[in-house]
Amino acid sequence: MTDSADKPFLSRRALLRSAVAGGGVIAAGSLGARAESNPENLPPNVAEWSKYLGSGVDASPYGSPSEFEKDVIRRSVRWLTASTESSVNFTPLHELDGIITPNGLCFERHHGGVAEINPADYRLMINGLVDKPMIFTLEDIKRFPRTNRIYFLECAANSGMEWRGAQLNGCQFTQGMIHCVQYTGVPLKHILEEAGLKTNAKWIMPEGGDSAGMNRSVPLEKALEDCLVAFGMNGEALRPEQGYPVRLVVPGWEGNMWVKWLRRIEVGDMPWHTREETSKYTDLMENGKSRRFTWVMDCKSVITNPSPQAPITHGKGYTVLSGLAWSGRGTIDRVDVTLDGGRNWHKARIDGPSFDKALHRFYYEFEWDGSPLLLQSRAIDSTGYVQPTKNELREVRGANSIYHNNGIQTWHVMKTGEVENVEVS
Amino acid sequence: MTDSADKPFLSRRALLRSAVAGGGVIAAGSLGARAESNPENLPPNVAEWSKYLGSGVDASPYGSPSEFEKDVIRRSVRWLTASTESSVNFTPLHELDGIITPNGLCFERHHGGVAEINPADYRLMINGLVDKPMIFTLEDIKRFPRTNRIYFLECAANSGMEWRGAQLNGCQFTQGMIHCVQYTGVPLKHILEEAGLKTNAKWIMPEGGDSAGMNRSVPLEKALEDCLVAFGMNGEALRPEQGYPVRLVVPGWEGNMWVKWLRRIEVGDMPWHTREETSKYTDLMENGKSRRFTWVMDCKSVITNPSPQAPITHGKGYTVLSGLAWSGRGTIDRVDVTLDGGRNWHKARIDGPSFDKALHRFYYEFEWDGSPLLLQSRAIDSTGYVQPTKNELREVRGANSIYHNNGIQTWHVMKTGEVENVEVS
Repeated sequence: MTDSADKPFLSRRALLRSAVAGGGVIAAGSLGARAESNPENLPPNVAEWSKYLGSGVDASPYGSPSEFEKDVIRRSVRWLTASTESSVNFTPLHELDGIITPNGLCFERHHGGVAEINPADYRLMINGLVDKPMIFTLEDIKRFPRTNRIYFLECAANSGMEWRGAQLNGCQFTQGMIHCVQYTGVPLKHILEEAGLKTNAKWIMPEGGDSAGMNRSVPLEKALEDCLVAFGMNGEALRPEQGYPVRLVVPGWEGNMWVKWLRRIEVGDMPWHTREETSKYTDLMENGKSRRFTWVMDCKSVITNPSPQAPITHGKGYTVLSGLAWSGRGTIDRVDVTLDGGRNWHKARIDGPSFDKALHRFYYEFEWDGSPLLLQSRAIDSTGYVQPTKNELREVRGANSIYHNNGIQTWHVMKTGEVENVEVS
Repeated sequence: MTDSADKPFLSRRALLRSAVAGGGVIAAGSLGARAESNPENLPPNVAEWSKYLGSGVDASPYGSPSEFEKDVIRRSVRWLTASTESSVNFTPLHELDGIITPNGLCFERHHGGVAEINPADYRLMINGLVDKPMIFTLEDIKRFPRTNRIYFLECAANSGMEWRGAQLNGCQFTQGMIHCVQYTGVPLKHILEEAGLKTNAKWIMPEGGDSAGMNRSVPLEKALEDCLVAFGMNGEALRPEQGYPVRLVVPGWEGNMWVKWLRRIEVGDMPWHTREETSKYTDLMENGKSRRFTWVMDCKSVITNPSPQAPITHGKGYTVLSGLAWSGRGTIDRVDVTLDGGRNWHKARIDGPSFDKALHRFYYEFEWDGSPLLLQSRAIDSTGYVQPTKNELREVRGANSIYHNNGIQTWHVMKTGEVENVEVS
């Protein structure tokens, strides 16, 4: 076991073979197939864009990414679902860095398409086992004391296609049902207390205003502990596809409990066993029975770069490996990385803030000698839980499941730098 | 002095007068002039948007805000500058929350418009007092070990128009030349060390690839301490107007040193005294002389809500006051708020993460009795420095200045809930 955090960052041995001593002209770099190079823009020439006035400050009152980033988008997999309205797309994890997901790239999972809600007509009803059934406007909600928290949101079905072996050739597709943003919202506790909980209250059922009326049962203990009625993400209003104007935030728990377009919360004394917690979102075991509820998203990690959509393009030499780790039970204590399918493990460098139930970014820098690699990462969370292999999961749960696959992902790096999704036994 | 952090959040005395016991229909809420209400969407009716399938997952591969948020945009003030290419626009602080600014809303300040750089042809040259002059591609830069840091960026001229009294009627316009994002980049130290610094190296001059060739002198000590060569913001690539594909990050220091579209860094033994650090971006004193350099953005705060563009619309009762505080010298230890122009101060509640040289979000909840208010906030940073009044600043620096106004901002709340920018002596 070696420890990259203890090594000096830079190897003086030819870190950058393409850098030229003396300031001469160097060959045009490659950014994959994204953009054609024009040698006239390279030193010692003055680049074309330095010679004319660019667009001014009123060009885009709400800005957009560069045209050269047009491939950095959410993507769906057509064969996964029959419709686009009850479907999913995926965050392009291999194109991102740090721990914040830009709002425009947060994956989507809808059961009846995006509800288009006029915030002036938005209402949240609280009913059931409360002293005073209440209806709140958006402005009402914004008059409660609010808080800001950074949390990951992962769909229970993330990596679901991988239960029966490596299937989808891209980090975006195998792991991209996750995002991490800063939420602004009101603790649900305040709102429930405003309505007044009856002594026999034990559960809540948040319900969406979408055409699916998405609803789930959430134990009251969790609702009072850390759930938020959120109206902001990454500083601005929620995006329509993320529940505008109001969604529930259920930190660390599976994504479909984070009900979007939240229109009602019923308080009860037992779970409702709704469609999306019985026919779906339950873990089917080897013997054909299902686990009743599996709420927490257990500790997991994945290498985002290199990965099938992000091959090594620079050839041998100094290489930056990067990835994400998270746990629904706390923070990440440690991430180990292997280049050889698990024979040798190296401690990765966790960089950037470490928040409870949020994404953590890790790096491992190494000299690639051009030989094939089997890349894996393995996270350990603050409870001491160690991310399992897929086979360890299968031993307990069989291979009938769709949900809660937090097994170790393997990428095979070929001599060419290309990468594919594989499994190692 | 009272302490809101020690008070219970919720006053049981009529927190929400508009909430209705019993679940009856209530009057349509007001969200300003943004959207017309349709009573048929209100309880007990089922809202229209719950009755049809909404748009599916392929509708917008890179998402956008709701149509109902179309007024949440950067805005410029036409009379401030003669052109849009050498101009500024402002972050809509009164519409945002938390500490992260969405990329599309980060204010812009250009000296020659937005350079439109093909990343395949991007080059960064390091020359001057180095052992090996070097030219790096974008891919080269991404092969250095990288880091993720959340920092505010404030233009030295933020609040500049307010030196001679209250002029601009909006938080967006008086304080909106600031944003705060998570940067991904490489410590400049690594890149300079790769080129090898000569022993007489004392300064660097970063230079932009825009048509203005924006450049500034930065002491080497700062360059080696915490400057980043950044290529990412809030998880994705830099936006074009923020320097795509590479900008310099100079934590805590005035914005125009954070050179965008970074094409060259010259290493020297004395400052260059470039145009933008002599004819501009120097503090003109009462006696007509200018301070040579004023790099650090001192501790400052502002109440974002209520403010002139964000009046109180709900009438008397429980009111959420919110604002931002920051310091180029560290974190924020404390923010105090006054409702009566400085006679009584109340400790605000700082909520969310506290990062070095980043925005901090504060709140103060109070019962508004409907009488006029004079709102101010006053921040104290981790060095013990207390944000001054504007008059305290003027006693030292006169009123000739444009830059580095970190004085206390006053908002006058009228009986109607409307708010205006005023000064109190």
